[in-house]
Amino acid sequence: MGDPAGVGPELCVRVLASPEMQTLCRPVIFGQLEVLRRASQAIGVPLPDGLQTQAAGCAELSDTTTVINCAGPDAGSIVPGKVSAACGGAGYHYIETAIGSAVAGQIAAVVTAPIHKEALRLSGVQHPGHTEIFTALTGAKRTCMMLRSEVLTVSMVTTHIGYAEVPGRLKVERVLDVIELTAAALQTMNQRPPRLAICGLNPHAGEHGLFGQQEEERCIEPAVRLAREKGIAIEGPLPPDTAFTTASRKRFDGVVCLYHDQGHIPFKMLAFEDGVNITLGLPIVRTSVDHGTAFDIAWKGVASPVSLFKAMEAGVLLASAQGAIPNDV
Amino acid sequence: MGDPAGVGPELCVRVLASPEMQTLCRPVIFGQLEVLRRASQAIGVPLPDGLQTQAAGCAELSDTTTVINCAGPDAGSIVPGKVSAACGGAGYHYIETAIGSAVAGQIAAVVTAPIHKEALRLSGVQHPGHTEIFTALTGAKRTCMMLRSEVLTVSMVTTHIGYAEVPGRLKVERVLDVIELTAAALQTMNQRPPRLAICGLNPHAGEHGLFGQQEEERCIEPAVRLAREKGIAIEGPLPPDTAFTTASRKRFDGVVCLYHDQGHIPFKMLAFEDGVNITLGLPIVRTSVDHGTAFDIAWKGVASPVSLFKAMEAGVLLASAQGAIPNDV
Repeated sequence: MGDPAGVGPELCVRVLASPEMQTLCRPVIFGQLEVLRRASQAIGVPLPDGLQTQAAGCAELSDTTTVINCAGPDAGSIVPGKVSAACGGAGYHYIETAIGSAVAGQIAAVVTAPIHKEALRLSGVQHPGHTEIFTALTGAKRTCMMLRSEVLTVSMVTTHIGYAEVPGRLKVERVLDVIELTAAALQTMNQRPPRLAICGLNPHAGEHGLFGQQEEERCIEPAVRLAREKGIAIEGPLPPDTAFTTASRKRFDGVVCLYHDQGHIPFKMLAFEDGVNITLGLPIVRTSVDHGTAFDIAWKGVASPVSLFKAMEAGVLLASAQGAIPNDV
Repeated sequence: MGDPAGVGPELCVRVLASPEMQTLCRPVIFGQLEVLRRASQAIGVPLPDGLQTQAAGCAELSDTTTVINCAGPDAGSIVPGKVSAACGGAGYHYIETAIGSAVAGQIAAVVTAPIHKEALRLSGVQHPGHTEIFTALTGAKRTCMMLRSEVLTVSMVTTHIGYAEVPGRLKVERVLDVIELTAAALQTMNQRPPRLAICGLNPHAGEHGLFGQQEEERCIEPAVRLAREKGIAIEGPLPPDTAFTTASRKRFDGVVCLYHDQGHIPFKMLAFEDGVNITLGLPIVRTSVDHGTAFDIAWKGVASPVSLFKAMEAGVLLASAQGAIPNDV
């Protein structure tokens, strides 16, 4: 359900009210029924009759359950659009409960609504975002963020760290991990070997050492060679500023990016509403909206559920392809 | 004319063959007539009859001169698409000759075709690109690169330096300089006070200190405050990944970017062919194509002259607005 003060609750209401989403899968919301009720009233979209709830942490998931009721702030105390430790902590608790259910095989995929990074930190959680939480709580060894839409797919070697920390994180092993995870995910989703590109770090990909500290030669090129030896079709390091033009996008199924904004700037330009965020390398399927809590429009009924619907579709696709059928159905 | 082994010569041939460009202004090409002739034959576009040439360095520019013949490699020795010190050095010589003419008031604006940074370096020139050459040769105190198109205008606090060097260059004074140069240029070109935005450096513009080393608080926010005190309408630092969405672009006339790819990635996605590069802060008008030498298609007749034509239009607009009428007409 995401941070309860954000757009997550109303988007969950729209999922429950959507015949398409009910046909696509059986949605189970990890959140709080009373918050959903209040959000439903706020935006004037009724909840379905007879919603079945279940407490968090049960060993079995009932076939009829739609809401897993988690601990969290009193629904009446929530101020939409306000950063708070209580809401940040609740959002984290929903996530860890959902991860527990997924690891136990009760659910086939976890689809996340947005959390607020400051609220999360205020609540005492050290992880900067969803990707790091999922990585830590599932004990995954190597993971990465992928953003996917019909017009562009990017994956990230680094994500929520400061600009200046990026060069120090560009190890050959990490770059190779992200290339391999990306190739495997696109093979699963597209059902054919993908054509990949990877960006350089410096302007013009360093222009043969003219700019930068040869990060391309030291970190990117060796990873590209190793990936090719493993049979992955990948080009690069490409000059970042021409990697996302229309012509370039036609040539590649996915682009490996070295830092947050290298991938997020082009992605958000092309897929502002319908983008999906996928964590690769986890033992469970996890997809997410690619937008934030949108506190400025929270609980006003104007937030678009398109990204969440797309994330659910991607979750179903990945869960089906990977055979991750829940063990209770 | 740019690096003679790149697409510059054939684009100059197209300028000379274009009735629109002859109506727009009186083009004077700083290059080599014999290279233009060979390029003309290569692409099958004839040069106008009776082209008048003049040697580089004359004190007066004749009304009928179309080509300023500069020193450079023998036309027959040029291998299209090949990096060479001879061509890099020739490209530099054309530029310094044109700058000399502009500073002397013989021409109203300098419009540059692409040079090749490696060729430039091989020839012994230490400047990494056009912007730096123009800054050095005109003795300008504060300059910056602007990329302009109908759909997006960006200007750059830093350009051709390594990724890792950027944070160290983000001084309040420099950021303020670029904001002021951008505001002044857009006021001149749009004839009304511009609305500006500036990007943060870190993911989500640091999210209030959560990522990065508070470059936003230390360097960007003080510059924004000072700019506002001077009457400039500017918002930011914005999260870079949402600064270039359709909704955001409608709100701003220009976006100040902190590093090369932060501005070049969105710009090249939106304005691959018709973008113009303008150096702000010079005592002369300088515009440029925003593409490179395109060695892979050089002298083949397929390179589009659209960006060069747009750069000439921008040069004429700026020269007219600034009253920089050449002193020989």
